[in-house]
Amino acid sequence: MAKKPSVPKGTRDFSPLQMAKRNYIFDSIQSVFIRYGYMPIETPAMENLTTLMGKYGEEGDKLLFKVLNSGDFLSKADEKTLVERDSAKAVSQLSDKGLRYDLTVPFARYVVQHQNEIVFPFKRFQIQPVWRADRPQRGRYREFFQCDVDVIGSKGLYNEAELVQIVDEVYSRLNINVVVKLNNRKILAGIAEVIGAKDYFTQITVAIDKFEKIGFDKVTEELLSVGLSAQSVEKLTPVFELSGSNFQKLELLKQFLGDSEIGLKGVAEVDELIRMIDALELKTPVELDLALARGLNYYTGAIFEIKSKDVEIGSITGGGRYDDLTGIFGLKNVSGVGISFGADRIYDVMEQLNLFPDTITTVTDLMIVNFGGEESVYGLKLAAHCRSVGIATELYPEKAKMKKQMTYADKKGVKWVVLAGVEEIESGVLTLKNMATGEQLTVTVEEALEKIKSL
Amino acid sequence: MAKKPSVPKGTRDFSPLQMAKRNYIFDSIQSVFIRYGYMPIETPAMENLTTLMGKYGEEGDKLLFKVLNSGDFLSKADEKTLVERDSAKAVSQLSDKGLRYDLTVPFARYVVQHQNEIVFPFKRFQIQPVWRADRPQRGRYREFFQCDVDVIGSKGLYNEAELVQIVDEVYSRLNINVVVKLNNRKILAGIAEVIGAKDYFTQITVAIDKFEKIGFDKVTEELLSVGLSAQSVEKLTPVFELSGSNFQKLELLKQFLGDSEIGLKGVAEVDELIRMIDALELKTPVELDLALARGLNYYTGAIFEIKSKDVEIGSITGGGRYDDLTGIFGLKNVSGVGISFGADRIYDVMEQLNLFPDTITTVTDLMIVNFGGEESVYGLKLAAHCRSVGIATELYPEKAKMKKQMTYADKKGVKWVVLAGVEEIESGVLTLKNMATGEQLTVTVEEALEKIKSL
Repeated sequence: MAKKPSVPKGTRDFSPLQMAKRNYIFDSIQSVFIRYGYMPIETPAMENLTTLMGKYGEEGDKLLFKVLNSGDFLSKADEKTLVERDSAKAVSQLSDKGLRYDLTVPFARYVVQHQNEIVFPFKRFQIQPVWRADRPQRGRYREFFQCDVDVIGSKGLYNEAELVQIVDEVYSRLNINVVVKLNNRKILAGIAEVIGAKDYFTQITVAIDKFEKIGFDKVTEELLSVGLSAQSVEKLTPVFELSGSNFQKLELLKQFLGDSEIGLKGVAEVDELIRMIDALELKTPVELDLALARGLNYYTGAIFEIKSKDVEIGSITGGGRYDDLTGIFGLKNVSGVGISFGADRIYDVMEQLNLFPDTITTVTDLMIVNFGGEESVYGLKLAAHCRSVGIATELYPEKAKMKKQMTYADKKGVKWVVLAGVEEIESGVLTLKNMATGEQLTVTVEEALEKIKSL
Repeated sequence: MAKKPSVPKGTRDFSPLQMAKRNYIFDSIQSVFIRYGYMPIETPAMENLTTLMGKYGEEGDKLLFKVLNSGDFLSKADEKTLVERDSAKAVSQLSDKGLRYDLTVPFARYVVQHQNEIVFPFKRFQIQPVWRADRPQRGRYREFFQCDVDVIGSKGLYNEAELVQIVDEVYSRLNINVVVKLNNRKILAGIAEVIGAKDYFTQITVAIDKFEKIGFDKVTEELLSVGLSAQSVEKLTPVFELSGSNFQKLELLKQFLGDSEIGLKGVAEVDELIRMIDALELKTPVELDLALARGLNYYTGAIFEIKSKDVEIGSITGGGRYDDLTGIFGLKNVSGVGISFGADRIYDVMEQLNLFPDTITTVTDLMIVNFGGEESVYGLKLAAHCRSVGIATELYPEKAKMKKQMTYADKKGVKWVVLAGVEEIESGVLTLKNMATGEQLTVTVEEALEKIKSL
């Protein structure tokens, strides 16, 4: 095989250093989740397509990676479908499993499937990769990690407040300056109502969701093209022009929404939530942003997006309340709310801003030079002894030239090297070398261990 | 949707308790790997099929999960293949990616792809799920975790000795009694040579590999059916009857192998390795087992399998030396050796023997009862304060009946509950309840924190 091997487009390998950095992010996030009383679950990478299809819109269905059925998969396919090359139709005949697209739908499936074992309200977190056949680009991968935290079975707005607290704490720990953008789908529903376009609610949210990316004019265009009247679109304009503090915006909105019951409910929810958040005196600013819509249809209340203030990379965390996500799997009236941290984008932000601590990588404390023969057996035993007192130790894995062994220790960032030749073993002393300073000491084994542990 | 949702056959969800148990296994294994100087990497779940196909034998190719190409995947398929329902041939036309089948082949691909960034000898570990379309049964899943540890770029038998040390240390930590079965593919090659069946080496290893499962007679049958002469098979018999200590077996083998160069090389390697292991005085017994063959073709030297002494579940760890695994990807003459811990089988063994510590699950230290209104805002702030001093704390997520809140705390295993109503907030004292004993104390916030942290 002449061609250099590679990984599939949009996927990546992680080297030891990259792993250390990524684990730093995971550990920071996870320890916050645990401190708030959330518990971990995991679900399989593959889900039945019946679980996944139709949950992410038409576009999402296309972006799902489908897994070919095992064995003689063509035998069950319909001749006409094959001959006509009707790929869309053939999918369901050739595949009944797909890779998970997010962690929310599998979580909803999990809750319904295990409803009798779960104590509600159920506070869970889940840190796993997801897969999307998106066009790869900056900040967008085909395999990426989500860190989800959800409460299900509770309607209290305390949950929303707690999620904002979690965002504040995670990003404080990671040293990333962020802003929380907040909105409420009930407000958007109210707006659709008062502009006389109630039936276009989904289209309105989809279009508004693109506001930041494509701008006001294009959003307007899209709304007209999906069937809204010019009058409705014109009425919408002031919404995008709201300014002032959160409470000033809420005041203006109340007037705009007139007697839309659902809209005013949304305003009341945002008002209560912002009061709670204010009382918590967080570092992170929280802004009501009416151009925030979240593309996914299952959101019904508060919605959030968190952005880095210093790097343009889209949202790095997002989520919201869903009143009936488990309904699609047969469990009605269980409201939940959750957010998802995008670990890969957080990684990119931290890399760009040079926020990873220098001390982050796992290193070997001590390497024992391998002289071969009896000395190596001594080295194996010495290494075992060093490990037993907590020192990460390796014996160089074969007899080799001293220079080669020292170069290895140096490149790997090993802190100490021990040389123990025949004379040294017989006299009970070793040569201990500090790789950073170059200093060499002649010491007993116990003195060496003490020295290594003390630094 | 009336039908209760489920996960694909052979895959599983992990509840918080199962996660805690599984993480206990991962943490134990990983901390040993790190202490021996191994460094973590990860590779994508999907690999190109060109990377995976042909590496696991014909059976393995069938058991690979293939991912359907995105978009109009039928357009590139050959009409004849489709109409004739030639699934085997259609695979390569409909799919160019598959889910990884193990961590060894992706590791070999990684080493070749990143050869210029790697410091050799490269000691890496990798803990990730793999997928196989095997028939699910006890101890066998379609999605399961492997914990692999390999050294690549070193021929020293010290590496083999170190892997046995690692096995000893991991299973000592997990409290599982195991035995290490050891063999060497060079010995098997020598045996094939002296029984006059050198060309049937692969068939012999495949058949021997089934020895424990199907017994001597069936192995004999299989060897005859694949073309070995009756004479060859008869000559093989004494090999299965070797007994005595490891060194006694090696003595007998030396005679049996006569002048087979490769066979005697294998004997010398095993001899040297066992001497090293003996010098380390491990807890775990190591047995030379000539009926151990390992099905995979890439092994060329030492091979290992580790079995639980107390539970019949097949091997829970296995591996060996491969002299040219990276050769298939274009990097010649880089020898490596590694083993893989099967986390899911280890889990099953520990569950069956009741070996998980009782204290294993993540629990919330403190729950604050939610009385609604201003008291809840006080609760949110109190919770933040408790967390800031390291206490895992949750405010019950909504105003609800006291009984419901206490039942939740009880079922979730929360250790302490705080009640802070209006009077309590005003007087600056709280009611703190110990959930295990039922004891109730009236204390200040700081007294409560001290009490919780002291226990």
